[in-house]
Amino acid sequence: MENKFLSFYDLDITGGFWYDRQKLNSETTIKAVYDRFKETGRFEALKQNYKEGQPNRPHIFYDSDVAKWIESAAYIYKKNKDESLLVLCEEMIDDIEKTRRQDGYFNSYFQQFEPEAIFTRRTDHELYCAGHLMEAAVAYYECTGRDRFLKIMCDYADLIEKVFLKDKSAAFTTPGHEEIELALVRLYKATNEKRYLELSKFFIDERGTKEEDEYDFAKHNYAQSDRPLRELSLAEGHSVRACYLYAGMADIALEYGDKELFAACERIFNNITEKRMYVTGGIGSAYQGESFTIDYDLPNNTAYTESCAAIALCFFANRMLKMDVNSKYSDVIERIIYNGFLSSTSLDGKAFFYKNPLDIDPKMKDRLTSTKDREHFPETERLEVFGCSCCPPNITRFVASIGDYIYSEKGDTLFVHQYISSKADKVEMESNFPFGGKVTIKTNNYNNVAVRIPSWVDKYTIKVNNVAADYEISKGYAYIKLPENALIELDFNMEVCLVESNPEVFINQGKVALTKGPVVYCLENIDNEAAVHKISLKEELNAEIEYDESLKAEAIYTDAYKKEFTSLYRKVNSDYKKIKAKFIPYYCFANRGTQEMCVWVNFIN
Amino acid sequence: MENKFLSFYDLDITGGFWYDRQKLNSETTIKAVYDRFKETGRFEALKQNYKEGQPNRPHIFYDSDVAKWIESAAYIYKKNKDESLLVLCEEMIDDIEKTRRQDGYFNSYFQQFEPEAIFTRRTDHELYCAGHLMEAAVAYYECTGRDRFLKIMCDYADLIEKVFLKDKSAAFTTPGHEEIELALVRLYKATNEKRYLELSKFFIDERGTKEEDEYDFAKHNYAQSDRPLRELSLAEGHSVRACYLYAGMADIALEYGDKELFAACERIFNNITEKRMYVTGGIGSAYQGESFTIDYDLPNNTAYTESCAAIALCFFANRMLKMDVNSKYSDVIERIIYNGFLSSTSLDGKAFFYKNPLDIDPKMKDRLTSTKDREHFPETERLEVFGCSCCPPNITRFVASIGDYIYSEKGDTLFVHQYISSKADKVEMESNFPFGGKVTIKTNNYNNVAVRIPSWVDKYTIKVNNVAADYEISKGYAYIKLPENALIELDFNMEVCLVESNPEVFINQGKVALTKGPVVYCLENIDNEAAVHKISLKEELNAEIEYDESLKAEAIYTDAYKKEFTSLYRKVNSDYKKIKAKFIPYYCFANRGTQEMCVWVNFIN
Repeated sequence: MENKFLSFYDLDITGGFWYDRQKLNSETTIKAVYDRFKETGRFEALKQNYKEGQPNRPHIFYDSDVAKWIESAAYIYKKNKDESLLVLCEEMIDDIEKTRRQDGYFNSYFQQFEPEAIFTRRTDHELYCAGHLMEAAVAYYECTGRDRFLKIMCDYADLIEKVFLKDKSAAFTTPGHEEIELALVRLYKATNEKRYLELSKFFIDERGTKEEDEYDFAKHNYAQSDRPLRELSLAEGHSVRACYLYAGMADIALEYGDKELFAACERIFNNITEKRMYVTGGIGSAYQGESFTIDYDLPNNTAYTESCAAIALCFFANRMLKMDVNSKYSDVIERIIYNGFLSSTSLDGKAFFYKNPLDIDPKMKDRLTSTKDREHFPETERLEVFGCSCCPPNITRFVASIGDYIYSEKGDTLFVHQYISSKADKVEMESNFPFGGKVTIKTNNYNNVAVRIPSWVDKYTIKVNNVAADYEISKGYAYIKLPENALIELDFNMEVCLVESNPEVFINQGKVALTKGPVVYCLENIDNEAAVHKISLKEELNAEIEYDESLKAEAIYTDAYKKEFTSLYRKVNSDYKKIKAKFIPYYCFANRGTQEMCVWVNFIN
Repeated sequence: MENKFLSFYDLDITGGFWYDRQKLNSETTIKAVYDRFKETGRFEALKQNYKEGQPNRPHIFYDSDVAKWIESAAYIYKKNKDESLLVLCEEMIDDIEKTRRQDGYFNSYFQQFEPEAIFTRRTDHELYCAGHLMEAAVAYYECTGRDRFLKIMCDYADLIEKVFLKDKSAAFTTPGHEEIELALVRLYKATNEKRYLELSKFFIDERGTKEEDEYDFAKHNYAQSDRPLRELSLAEGHSVRACYLYAGMADIALEYGDKELFAACERIFNNITEKRMYVTGGIGSAYQGESFTIDYDLPNNTAYTESCAAIALCFFANRMLKMDVNSKYSDVIERIIYNGFLSSTSLDGKAFFYKNPLDIDPKMKDRLTSTKDREHFPETERLEVFGCSCCPPNITRFVASIGDYIYSEKGDTLFVHQYISSKADKVEMESNFPFGGKVTIKTNNYNNVAVRIPSWVDKYTIKVNNVAADYEISKGYAYIKLPENALIELDFNMEVCLVESNPEVFINQGKVALTKGPVVYCLENIDNEAAVHKISLKEELNAEIEYDESLKAEAIYTDAYKKEFTSLYRKVNSDYKKIKAKFIPYYCFANRGTQEMCVWVNFIN
């Protein structure tokens, strides 16, 4: 029996942390992204009337940016019924309908600039754009009931099926940038047309089974094509592409009951979360190839940790959760949504990080003599738009659909995965997450509830109708039999906690990260009397929590220590000066100018 | 009155550490470098008979490699009278004499391949090669009494004077790669021809006073041409070029009594040694531009720390010492010769490091997806020859002339700067350095002696003729009045010591380096039960010293600690397991295969 997730379509976020985020998303962020995309010609590109010499020459990935914006707008419309969003979407769909080829093909770059190269270059994002357009079309159909865009994309999917699966007339078999695999599964579910599921399975089955064109600057595993997917054990290559693929693999594993594929997915998931994931949930350790690297290689200042990769890992984890109710999946989602994902967006909702470093030392940019090398120094403040601006509309669609991650049901059991205040037909929850651990859940429609016990919690209580509940723990969930009209009260103790990394993460030896509940904290110079890289902590923190009005978040004050001396080297001694440190949630960093920041803080053991 | 150094010509290294090094240098290293240079066509290039398509097409810097080999051979011949070395040198000088232009010009690259470009490209090492040839000619003359090569190079210097100083007919004013400045001063001293000194001063005076051609990949300070030299305060750009220049500046400051230039030299020296120098004495923190970077930027694993830069800093420091007897100069020389210089050569004397990293984690090479980026991963073992093989013959000439750094005299005072067993006409010394702190000095020719008190020493005794001596300390030297037939006995306590970096060196926070006397130690996996990056130390070391036969050096065994757990993150705790660690001198690293190595070790404070 499938563990079936409640769609965010069928519930409302009713208050608290994510209510505020969704409000910002629908009132500010979606419009900010629109404005920047309009300025940079991304929507105009759909009209396919670009003339050489004009600004904003369309790029091979522009359609995917537009698609994610439409998907976001559809989700937001679903909740706020803002018709102005649909007006914008309809114009875009008009353009797509007008300019697409008769055979169903649509790509605003290839049609205009290289029609002869259509379906010949594996490395050029064609099916990636197609996948995002399909996701957008499904979302638009589901949120508005209008099926024009869906039909357009079905035509395109039919063409892709013909070219790739039936005729095998394309110059490559599987795409260099994955995404279409999971998109086709969504298209199948929206249309009930099994051919789309089979086409997705075809791309999964074929990938890595034979030599295909590769990116010449990178190793063969950059595009996850170095071996058949069922043989994979390591997360490798471009981290966004990888996790979109893994999500598609999990979809196929679920739809076909493919245990071998599930096992590969689990091996990969374990490899990511046990050896290749930052404490913020960020993934992808190297800007070279925007990629996973090797086990325990988690550099903080050059962390690539693309915002899209964090989102993609949530997609992957949630699909695994459908097949295996195990808190290792939902814990990772929680880690991401409160840290490495949330950091992607400025507190005013208008600017974005592509990379989410765990350490900033701005002066290090000046260490590089070569102007070329300087380009790879991570941004120290968020930007409103990027040349490759995949992240902003990915963020808007993810925030709008965060409700997808809260509940699932299987038979007469309700599963609660994320503690987000919300109301659906059969359940209602109030939660103080992420800054408070109290949660109440009301339901009269299930015989059992299974609630996730977060991995960070030491102490917690569970009451049902005001009485300590009997429960059994299985794979990180507490299973509880429910009476009628159940009021479940959870209280997860959120202590300030110092976390250490596995000793194999050499770079974090002798350092700790401060956390409280699901939130990872960081230090910024603006809050501290010492440069944050010179601050040390001891186990005795004497932590005090104080609400920071400007950040709208809990700050944590602790005892801390620093050394000051002038010589470059000296005989070691312990003459620390005691000071105070102020920690803020990691996701709040870089909202107050360029400055030093660190998550991993020196520890005096 | 000049503080005049005794030349190594006038003394012998009589035993101990440097005796062994010089033996290896003259019996093995000089021949190994010869063989590799011969195989790669460096000597053949002098004949200027290269035909396109043949292997080993001469490079713009080949002449400088040959020159340093001749200089090394001359020094070795001076001591061991090995005529076979002179036979080889004479053949090379024959070739130079035959192929040089009538006007005195000689460059085996430009004459063969780009005669039209002679003296037109500032960035192409022409005067750098000329400088090394001049140094070689001076050395050859001084060590053999034969003046043919010297005359050849005087002709060349005369041409350079005409083109650059008199006619100003070259396309540039000052060279992109410095070296000729200090070489011309040597040529002046060997010939007493003041025009060469003036030409050197011209290059120093003109540099940075106007816009000149620069390297397009780098910032303007890469070649130290961003401002007049007397205004410099920071050590910047390519570290070898920089220190050759600074040595030349110091020469000119001394010869002309130029206080402004001396002050600039001192500011630069302080900047290097107080903010930009590794604990090993290595300099140059970035492979990009092989350059100095910014204050306190001392990454250990990507340390560039070129062997030539360590040597060049000795040149610079020793010239400063001539003007100012201050142990800050001689301490740095000691730091370099026992650590960051010595590490450049394998224990068998046949292989070399160009870069001398302070940290190796071999698996990190695999973190890079891009094949191009992998090229910049530092070598983990020494090589016999490099494409750009400037370091090996620089090492051979430096070891052969190490005697230049021991003594100086000023009036009736003898200065002892380095504790190296040696015998000159007027003084004899026995020393256990670097592993023992006992030194005896016998002299009957000076009224005073000034001995350097090393910066690392806590406790020491000075006896003269078996009685505790009266002495006064000035700038790190103990000044002692001497009786007749003085026997000075020094005993510097060499304790095992843990050193820490200034807190501004963020990367070394919470880490210590183990030292004993002048020697910096390191950990290698082969000697230890735990991967060395996972080893931690506490202040209580319980150190035991044991002679390691295979390394012919003192190893140090200490208490150490490690953690082992499997999760990627956990709540911090202090469950260390006590283990033993074995430290070896840093200079011995990488003689037993590719493996993890670290100088900076985690410290439990």
